[in-house]
Amino acid sequence: MIDFACKTFNIENIIKCSLGLTKSEYKILGFFIDNPENYFTSEEISKELSLNLTTIQKAVKKLKERDILIRSQENLDNGGYLFNYKLSSKQNIRNIVKKIIETWSEKVKSSIDSW
Amino acid sequence: MIDFACKTFNIENIIKCSLGLTKSEYKILGFFIDNPENYFTSEEISKELSLNLTTIQKAVKKLKERDILIRSQENLDNGGYLFNYKLSSKQNIRNIVKKIIETWSEKVKSSIDSW
Repeated sequence: MIDFACKTFNIENIIKCSLGLTKSEYKILGFFIDNPENYFTSEEISKELSLNLTTIQKAVKKLKERDILIRSQENLDNGGYLFNYKLSSKQNIRNIVKKIIETWSEKVKSSIDSW
Repeated sequence: MIDFACKTFNIENIIKCSLGLTKSEYKILGFFIDNPENYFTSEEISKELSLNLTTIQKAVKKLKERDILIRSQENLDNGGYLFNYKLSSKQNIRNIVKKIIETWSEKVKSSIDSW
């Protein structure tokens, strides 16, 4: 637990809030953090986490757009393709979150200037 | 109202928390901010704010120790003396508060490093 201005925060909520993640999206992020070296398809994650495939597909797309996941396209023999997702890196995510915390902090400080 | 990590803060609470002030102490600070150019004794403030003299005496001592108020000693003809208090400067208080916000923010950021 971390304090800021006499309110208490937990790290999980700070990360969820800074990255704008829902509970399911945070759960999916947790799965990738536990398996940082491997690529997964939406179907595989859906089975692992017992979450609806559409939820996973939307979530990994969003996490990829936020540079939290990287995507690789696998071409199939039948001419189709599959997207595989992997964690960018935990350090990268830490840096994204810390940059957002810095922005929040700057806003709080400028509110003091107008006091 | 200011947001930080999906929680809402008001400036008053940020200032109270950063300076470690009670409600009465914040009220006394408000009085000095409304009268930034003048010196006041504890008795005068007590009358103005209808607050108990002991409360005022403790509060101005604390505000002086935190560099929010400056104190001047007035020697009386009978050999006694009076303490007079004046606001240091609003900009000085802003700087103190902003420095504390910066410290909070650094702690939040380092919690992310240990995530």
